[in-house]
Amino acid sequence: MSNSHRYTLIISCPDRAGIIAAVSGFIARHGGFIVEASYHTEQEAQRFFMRQEIRADSLPFDAAEFRQRFAALAQEFAMSWQLFDSAQKKRLVILVSKQDHCLNDLLHRWRSGELLVDIPCVISNHDDLRGFVEWHGIPFIHVDMQANKAAAFDKIAALFEQHRGDCMVLARFMQIMPPALCQRFSGRIINIHHSFLPSFIGAKPYHQAYQRGVKLIGATCHYVTDELDAGQIIEQDTLRIDHGDTVDDLVRYGRDIEKTVLSRGLRYHVEDRVMVCGSKTIVFR
Amino acid sequence: MSNSHRYTLIISCPDRAGIIAAVSGFIARHGGFIVEASYHTEQEAQRFFMRQEIRADSLPFDAAEFRQRFAALAQEFAMSWQLFDSAQKKRLVILVSKQDHCLNDLLHRWRSGELLVDIPCVISNHDDLRGFVEWHGIPFIHVDMQANKAAAFDKIAALFEQHRGDCMVLARFMQIMPPALCQRFSGRIINIHHSFLPSFIGAKPYHQAYQRGVKLIGATCHYVTDELDAGQIIEQDTLRIDHGDTVDDLVRYGRDIEKTVLSRGLRYHVEDRVMVCGSKTIVFR
Amino acid sequence: MSNSHRYTLIISCPDRAGIIAAVSGFIARHGGFIVEASYHTEQEAQRFFMRQEIRADSLPFDAAEFRQRFAALAQEFAMSWQLFDSAQKKRLVILVSKQDHCLNDLLHRWRSGELLVDIPCVISNHDDLRGFVEWHGIPFIHVDMQANKAAAFDKIAALFEQHRGDCMVLARFMQIMPPALCQRFSGRIINIHHSFLPSFIGAKPYHQAYQRGVKLIGATCHYVTDELDAGQIIEQDTLRIDHGDTVDDLVRYGRDIEKTVLSRGLRYHVEDRVMVCGSKTIVFR
Amino acid sequence: MSNSHRYTLIISCPDRAGIIAAVSGFIARHGGFIVEASYHTEQEAQRFFMRQEIRADSLPFDAAEFRQRFAALAQEFAMSWQLFDSAQKKRLVILVSKQDHCLNDLLHRWRSGELLVDIPCVISNHDDLRGFVEWHGIPFIHVDMQANKAAAFDKIAALFEQHRGDCMVLARFMQIMPPALCQRFSGRIINIHHSFLPSFIGAKPYHQAYQRGVKLIGATCHYVTDELDAGQIIEQDTLRIDHGDTVDDLVRYGRDIEKTVLSRGLRYHVEDRVMVCGSKTIVFR
Repeated sequence: MSNSHRYTLIISCPDRAGIIAAVSGFIARHGGFIVEASYHTEQEAQRFFMRQEIRADSLPFDAAEFRQRFAALAQEFAMSWQLFDSAQKKRLVILVSKQDHCLNDLLHRWRSGELLVDIPCVISNHDDLRGFVEWHGIPFIHVDMQANKAAAFDKIAALFEQHRGDCMVLARFMQIMPPALCQRFSGRIINIHHSFLPSFIGAKPYHQAYQRGVKLIGATCHYVTDELDAGQIIEQDTLRIDHGDTVDDLVRYGRDIEKTVLSRGLRYHVEDRVMVCGSKTIVFR
Repeated sequence: MSNSHRYTLIISCPDRAGIIAAVSGFIARHGGFIVEASYHTEQEAQRFFMRQEIRADSLPFDAAEFRQRFAALAQEFAMSWQLFDSAQKKRLVILVSKQDHCLNDLLHRWRSGELLVDIPCVISNHDDLRGFVEWHGIPFIHVDMQANKAAAFDKIAALFEQHRGDCMVLARFMQIMPPALCQRFSGRIINIHHSFLPSFIGAKPYHQAYQRGVKLIGATCHYVTDELDAGQIIEQDTLRIDHGDTVDDLVRYGRDIEKTVLSRGLRYHVEDRVMVCGSKTIVFR
Repeated sequence: MSNSHRYTLIISCPDRAGIIAAVSGFIARHGGFIVEASYHTEQEAQRFFMRQEIRADSLPFDAAEFRQRFAALAQEFAMSWQLFDSAQKKRLVILVSKQDHCLNDLLHRWRSGELLVDIPCVISNHDDLRGFVEWHGIPFIHVDMQANKAAAFDKIAALFEQHRGDCMVLARFMQIMPPALCQRFSGRIINIHHSFLPSFIGAKPYHQAYQRGVKLIGATCHYVTDELDAGQIIEQDTLRIDHGDTVDDLVRYGRDIEKTVLSRGLRYHVEDRVMVCGSKTIVFR
Repeated sequence: MSNSHRYTLIISCPDRAGIIAAVSGFIARHGGFIVEASYHTEQEAQRFFMRQEIRADSLPFDAAEFRQRFAALAQEFAMSWQLFDSAQKKRLVILVSKQDHCLNDLLHRWRSGELLVDIPCVISNHDDLRGFVEWHGIPFIHVDMQANKAAAFDKIAALFEQHRGDCMVLARFMQIMPPALCQRFSGRIINIHHSFLPSFIGAKPYHQAYQRGVKLIGATCHYVTDELDAGQIIEQDTLRIDHGDTVDDLVRYGRDIEKTVLSRGLRYHVEDRVMVCGSKTIVFR
């Protein structure tokens, strides 16, 4: 995605003939220049998904009017749809514990301009990473989880809303989110799990992998749902290991996959490339 | 690609607003059901590429009439275009020398129904593989290259035309095609080169790779042009090696990449997923 | 492994100082030329593993005398050990159902001289692949599994012994081996499972993978034990898929990983590179 | 490599029978406990390479005395050899221009304790990264390259020696090192090149890759010699791209491969796992 001003139109609706024609006809009638277009039919669900990026300067109206004018067509095809304006950066609230490899990676992408988001704050249950975060000019908020976990999660939810977060990123947060919070921010919480799901759900996946004697380890970036490590998968990757690698080696290699997989999955989400269909995602790369 | 009857429409034209709308509008007006749609703009060339698969039974006319009706629209947008009918299987003529790993792989995919093509004949400059090819019920033609190479290539060209070949597959043929033949069948000759091009052009690429001390080897499936190993790349892959691997090991590992890369690239070609733009390919997977 | 005559010495014993010195001292005293040497200590088990290939022509005695002379040293260090003679090819009995992609791959490696084994027979519960197997000059034995499964497995075990099989290869055999048979031929039955274990154990793993929405699929080559799909893993690999791939696509891609992973794992076994330690393997590549 | 105190013995010598026995015999006679042992014979050069890690506390003498006692044996076998003491951390001097993705990655690995080295200073031809480096408590030295390039390189060489550098890391330094400097610090300068060498030597490799239409891009970590981008390769990796990726996308993806490949290659060097043989490296992982 370049940095030019664009609208991204995301649609899902029951599959039938004529959808592409109707939507691209609507855009063409207003002189809209499509920069990127992707389509997918989910066979079992008989549902059609599409994503289109349109150059904002090719249209004679703004996002608000776009939405207004498009509504009738959307209704005709029973569409679920959203229009995103690239001028409105997504606001990411990052949650982290003590391990900072994912945080270090995300903040570098942010400060180098690769990840086009706002980061209103970083929240942690430890105070260790305050200096590094604040060096970036980003507020660091320490929320103690020891005394009262429920209250702590309430505070996190309040902070997320207060900072108008669009997406909560669990960058190795190491705390299980309460189901109510998962439901409340459904599709807006992204986690990195340090295994190739569905293998090795839960705690200490690298130890589990070591015990089982697998020949590859992996990491999974997924939406958080109320079932542990069972949310829709956005991105995964694996890396070859061998019998000579200790658990410590797996943990070390794993950090590299975790940060790569999280940053890729997060980028897809931030660029509105991810659509959810039941237990799966469609990722329009 | 499923086995149902489909038309595949391949278009390239100067980029401008409204192309998708015009084409999808044409299809929709006739009730056409789009199964798969892909688009790409080549920025430097300012050229637009598209590929659409349409269910044949959703249209009220056949391929010939489709072509007739579509011509006016194509002219308006100055399109280069083709319509392929999935009922017309591509005819592959396979050329091979003595090494048979690619041939063995392709024939298995053919006889198991994975590769939906006709193979009117296999041509070789050696007689070694006659038994294996004929066991499949495919004619095997031995063309001697020793005595008169030019005459041999003339004979190959004649055989290709006589068998109404759509695509000539050099499945480790180990002979350099004469430029005139490359030009005559431009875009229709596919080769597998046993290196990650543009590294290690020409003879004995695994020996070159071994001498250079690379840590990965590769293979490249490409169209054959009149410049050696410089044709448009369709597919590539690499595999990790280490200092313990001898040249013989590289050759052995290499066979596995070669056959995988050739079969993938060939499949893209057979399914009309590959479009050429200058020195590059667009592959709509 | 080159084709020259070699002995491969495989040892495991409690870890302590001086093992390498003792073994390499023994070999050196007899003028033995070590071609390849690998070592590993399994930390939890405090057990040492080693593998050494020695040029047969550098030693003044044959394999039988080697074993006799080495016994005292082995006892001193409480070694489990074996000496393999490269002149004694392993005898593989291949079991297959109807899908022949792994069989086609293995037979090609065998007839091209890449896989240095004897294949005394291929056993199948269907008669479909008789022609292809017999074309290779290999006996094909049809064992009916419908009428009496227990009797059929007894017959398979009898055939394996009668053909003096060293290793039983389940090349997509699609039948669950009875526990008694697994125990009887422990460490000698190799299976290819069409998932990245421990994910998607049991039937229809590609369907399971599709439903879960994973972004990579995989295959696993493992020893068969009396617990389903829980044997020691020899080799694994994964391949990227995306939302556009149907179950049929996964099955098709999967065939390519299956045959690659099986042939690699099997090669490690045949070259005596695999040692078992509890639930894991050490693979000296 | 764990953090316990160890000696690493690196040897190369003409290949013959009895080397392993002699060296492991020497170690065993003094009660030395070998933690890791690796061997390799370079066939063409008929040269033998070995690496052994020995627990320091298992030996009755220190590194100096080890070297003294080992000298006679080394002479007998005409060995080139070195003994490294894990208590002596390597000193890395990092050179960087404006792009900081590799620097950010290396400094994180250093501050998290993953990369066990000392970093006496970071040198740059720009002042941009001063703040980030100094936040780590590491001296940042700006050397102007504009006015007098030869004088600047003299200064860099002087700084490297003054800070007692063991290894100079070109973390996207973007300046061609003068041949005299390459020779003076032979085997001690490590570069990351942003292509899969030998493809795309020299400037703007991602642009070259884009123009050629390759389907994978890569990065190469290598020793710097007096021939541009022709030094011995330590580590490489590749990543799949497709026709939809712009040059900017390649540059962005490339950063991820570059930092991974550099950190892996550097780690091998720091752990004394890399030995050079002519134009190639042996990497004992």
